[in-house]
Amino acid sequence: MAIDDVLADLRAKIEKNLPDGVTISGVSFEGPQLVLYTEDPKKFADDGNIIRNLAKVLRIRIAVRPDPKVLAEPERSIELIHKIVPADSVISNCYFDPDSGEVIIEAEKPGLVIGKHGDTLREITKEIGWIPKVARTPPIKSKTVKNVRDFMRNNLKERKEILKDVGRKIHRECSHPDQWIRITALGGCMEVGRSCYLLSTPESKIMIDCGVNLGSEDKTPYLYVPEVNHFDELDAIVITHAHMDHQGLVPLLFKYGYSGPVYCTPPTRDMTILLQLDYIDVASKEGKKVPYDSATIEKELLHMIPLDYEEVTDIAPDIKLTFHNAGHIIGSAISHFHIGDGLHNIVFTGDYKYERTRLFDPAVNKFPRVETVVTEATYGNNNGFQTPLRDAERNLQKIIKTTVERGGAVLIPAFAVGRSQEVMIVLEEAIRKGFIPNVPVYLDGMIWEATAIHATHPEYLNSELKKQIFQKGQNPFLSESFRQVDSKDMRDKILEEPHPCVIIATSGMMTGGPVMNYFYKLAPDEKNTLVFVGYQADGTIGRRIQKGWKEIAVGNNNTVKVNMGIETIDGFSGHSDVKQLMDYVKKMQPKPERIYTSHGDEKSCIEFADSIKKKARIDAKPLVNLETFRIL
Amino acid sequence: MAIDDVLADLRAKIEKNLPDGVTISGVSFEGPQLVLYTEDPKKFADDGNIIRNLAKVLRIRIAVRPDPKVLAEPERSIELIHKIVPADSVISNCYFDPDSGEVIIEAEKPGLVIGKHGDTLREITKEIGWIPKVARTPPIKSKTVKNVRDFMRNNLKERKEILKDVGRKIHRECSHPDQWIRITALGGCMEVGRSCYLLSTPESKIMIDCGVNLGSEDKTPYLYVPEVNHFDELDAIVITHAHMDHQGLVPLLFKYGYSGPVYCTPPTRDMTILLQLDYIDVASKEGKKVPYDSATIEKELLHMIPLDYEEVTDIAPDIKLTFHNAGHIIGSAISHFHIGDGLHNIVFTGDYKYERTRLFDPAVNKFPRVETVVTEATYGNNNGFQTPLRDAERNLQKIIKTTVERGGAVLIPAFAVGRSQEVMIVLEEAIRKGFIPNVPVYLDGMIWEATAIHATHPEYLNSELKKQIFQKGQNPFLSESFRQVDSKDMRDKILEEPHPCVIIATSGMMTGGPVMNYFYKLAPDEKNTLVFVGYQADGTIGRRIQKGWKEIAVGNNNTVKVNMGIETIDGFSGHSDVKQLMDYVKKMQPKPERIYTSHGDEKSCIEFADSIKKKARIDAKPLVNLETFRIL
Repeated sequence: MAIDDVLADLRAKIEKNLPDGVTISGVSFEGPQLVLYTEDPKKFADDGNIIRNLAKVLRIRIAVRPDPKVLAEPERSIELIHKIVPADSVISNCYFDPDSGEVIIEAEKPGLVIGKHGDTLREITKEIGWIPKVARTPPIKSKTVKNVRDFMRNNLKERKEILKDVGRKIHRECSHPDQWIRITALGGCMEVGRSCYLLSTPESKIMIDCGVNLGSEDKTPYLYVPEVNHFDELDAIVITHAHMDHQGLVPLLFKYGYSGPVYCTPPTRDMTILLQLDYIDVASKEGKKVPYDSATIEKELLHMIPLDYEEVTDIAPDIKLTFHNAGHIIGSAISHFHIGDGLHNIVFTGDYKYERTRLFDPAVNKFPRVETVVTEATYGNNNGFQTPLRDAERNLQKIIKTTVERGGAVLIPAFAVGRSQEVMIVLEEAIRKGFIPNVPVYLDGMIWEATAIHATHPEYLNSELKKQIFQKGQNPFLSESFRQVDSKDMRDKILEEPHPCVIIATSGMMTGGPVMNYFYKLAPDEKNTLVFVGYQADGTIGRRIQKGWKEIAVGNNNTVKVNMGIETIDGFSGHSDVKQLMDYVKKMQPKPERIYTSHGDEKSCIEFADSIKKKARIDAKPLVNLETFRIL
Repeated sequence: MAIDDVLADLRAKIEKNLPDGVTISGVSFEGPQLVLYTEDPKKFADDGNIIRNLAKVLRIRIAVRPDPKVLAEPERSIELIHKIVPADSVISNCYFDPDSGEVIIEAEKPGLVIGKHGDTLREITKEIGWIPKVARTPPIKSKTVKNVRDFMRNNLKERKEILKDVGRKIHRECSHPDQWIRITALGGCMEVGRSCYLLSTPESKIMIDCGVNLGSEDKTPYLYVPEVNHFDELDAIVITHAHMDHQGLVPLLFKYGYSGPVYCTPPTRDMTILLQLDYIDVASKEGKKVPYDSATIEKELLHMIPLDYEEVTDIAPDIKLTFHNAGHIIGSAISHFHIGDGLHNIVFTGDYKYERTRLFDPAVNKFPRVETVVTEATYGNNNGFQTPLRDAERNLQKIIKTTVERGGAVLIPAFAVGRSQEVMIVLEEAIRKGFIPNVPVYLDGMIWEATAIHATHPEYLNSELKKQIFQKGQNPFLSESFRQVDSKDMRDKILEEPHPCVIIATSGMMTGGPVMNYFYKLAPDEKNTLVFVGYQADGTIGRRIQKGWKEIAVGNNNTVKVNMGIETIDGFSGHSDVKQLMDYVKKMQPKPERIYTSHGDEKSCIEFADSIKKKARIDAKPLVNLETFRIL
């Protein structure tokens, strides 16, 4: 059936299922959604069940848009919105898109704009005709979030064309007589870095992650092999989370011909844009090859379709995607693919933490159905145990207390996304509860911006934090202890007269970045302490200091003496240790039939697969880069 | 380095290595060869070592062609050729190609035109300037061989362009930093039929076989997957032998965009053309879907590059191919791929017989190097034993003797290629030695034509037959006992008054073809005997008769009573039985590191792999359709 016939068919079904007197003026696929145009938006708004019933009958995501003729004037609309919505919500902006009939309402408390079960939203539609979408006013100003939102608002027309194109492709008819499912490993198997997989059926080709292995020579996945090198033939790209080893080369695909959708969670979208822009900025400053430019990142952004956790979404004629919390970093997603009409279910875990952390709930491992799992195996080797998180926190508090009490400063090199925020939450609580003295916590490098993105998406934090933020109104990221270092002047001033404080600064392995400025100044004084909370790779300055080097080169001919205390705290990892990995698999519901290991060195991938076979009695083996595995 | 620079570089090396006074006027890649143009063809002819030395230094196949200005007039040349070549050779034709400077001399005894170590050929060049190529005058008139040769002669210009294009692609520079080798199974794995593999490296993509699984719905390999569906990106196609399940869909690749070389042995080329033309003819007569037309077969023919056994040939920048005898049917080739400069060696066995048969020497299993083997496993299951060949022959003789002596006719349904000729040789000897009475042996269907192709390529028969043909001048295929049935009239005449005789007729499983005419007439009389020498698939009339059905439907409402004797002789298979398969692997030199099984049902592929692991202590597993295996 041609796509227009599919639409005509759907329209007929919809009209049959609409209550008397409710009419639609058109239907259209836009992205994974079916959009209904109506001259009666008020009637749809009146009865939330109309849409719910239709979605159930048609088994498709549905959105309603008003016909332009029924829309109130924007100025009048703003007035009405402010009348309807409680003042507590603190509306900061309203943006109208006449093309979609949507108004984006930016508010500090989006929940109050939405109302109970969406009551307030429906009330707005009834009054003004426009369909309201709600966004959170970032509680900490985030340049990234602002830029992303501005860019999307300035490119609504193009965006709509893209969504229509995607929508028509998703809903094309399946016609292939064969039935099979394959996974091709394109990177990040028996290694960490450059994660990339292809999931394919006779109908569809989905790429899952497309990372870069950052190093002296950035290593790309095997993107030149014929399985993927005609990028325009891919149906979709799915990003499991925003770390560069999972999304760093997505723009490259756009550079070389891809023009389809990129699915990820909203925080992953924002964080991805931040990290990619930083990546090309740093690369160009270091004189390294810059694989793509910012215009390509913009192109990618325009093609990103954010999906919330638990939202079942058609992404290809025969594939539905559902994201679930992975507990690794903000927005990280366990990606569940339902293939065919009940044919097969595959879970790509991406990176996950199967333990409640300060920031996140443990990774989800309950699904309606699952037969095949591709799991990470970073700490999957038989000795991959980690210090318990609570012990790690106590160690950190003790070190800070001791250092501060002797008048010293604590320097923590940290990667901007994930560990920094975890440590921040620990410190906020410790200061609030008086476990450590109330000293300033300076955040330098991209940490502040990454934190702002966390603060914009509190729905993606764990249930306790959400309660704290939404119900008690205490957002730990807004604590007054945190100070953004936003200029060289400020940095110089902090270092002019070192004082008891905590400094969290990038880069995490001391391969450059502001952390080095602090280090050079603080290293000679034994009052101060350097605390490693993340992995230090061989060859980095971080590793040398960790190993006990007492002199570190500075520039060409100078060295700095390392007299400060050096501590390493294990246990802040965003990855599950071997016990958590095994628990995650063993407690998975339902029990899968087959597990592939990846994202770990050779030993970890092999040993974890062996353990799964022995202890969980599930068929398991490691994926191998460049191999294709048939799972059906 | 650009290809023109490569050529300039080669030319410089050649000129440095040429003896004083010998000059070249140009160099060019044509197919896998480097062609030297010279105004001194006589000097090259004088000293055969010049070319041999150059080939050794440059490690490349070299051909010398005269500059047009030094060529004698064709008429004068023919005179001179007849003067130089012994009259015994019986020259039937000379064809001149001014474009290549070659003259093709067709003779009944090509050996006499070549002379000892090529002496006579060189003598010819010295006298006429033209470079002689020798072809055998088919001792039995073969329409296929004539058509193939005519077609090639009529398309010399286009052929030369194709060869130049192929040559430049083969000799392009390797520049990829990665090093890996993969095999993708596209058909014929865990099943028999539609054999198709892709061998790929970062530089090159070689397709090995592209068969069709003949059946009610002809099944194709998985040609639509991205690994191969951009057919123009393939570097080469290699056909291991001429059965339809190995080459039946090669023209389809040309239909959908492939325009590169097809490598196979000369008999495989002729037989392939014969079988493909028959395939589309039968399909169109039966009202089935015809996958390609004869023009596409012609296109394929123009791109075929025949290679003899043991001829090491560059087929891609990083791959050399060498064919070895496989003993399965005429021209069947064990295909050895040398990858990189000593990087890895892979053998694709295709179908093979590891036993000396009436027609062929046993399959070759000694190679300079081999690490990986992909072997057939047709009879690889633990019970895959067959009757010894000599017992099968004795059984056949006995049945014929008994039947003929009681005045009956023996009807043998047989596939045109392979088994028919094997049985013919057995009968020729039996008649010559008086083991069975001297009765006519009628050959009906494509058998005669297939036999003519065998007779054209005696070099591809076993050493004993070659001796018999070349030294004793006894070509068993020319025996007067054999009678070609070339018209309905003749068939009717034979059947008008059935008499003691042997009839070998297609199709082999009695699914149609002339065998049915004989059967209907001979079946009711118990004097006659029907002898099965090949496998009868379920659902075929052959299988029903074999199972003992006493009435067979004829047309719509009639049936024929089966009173004739029904016999089945096991052991004429062109495939190795399980013992021979295991021997082939165990005695392989050198011992390979890894073996993949294919071309067998699931049980055979799995059990043979298991046996190899246990008995030969070599890592082994079955290939799986649609999976990709990394071998380096």
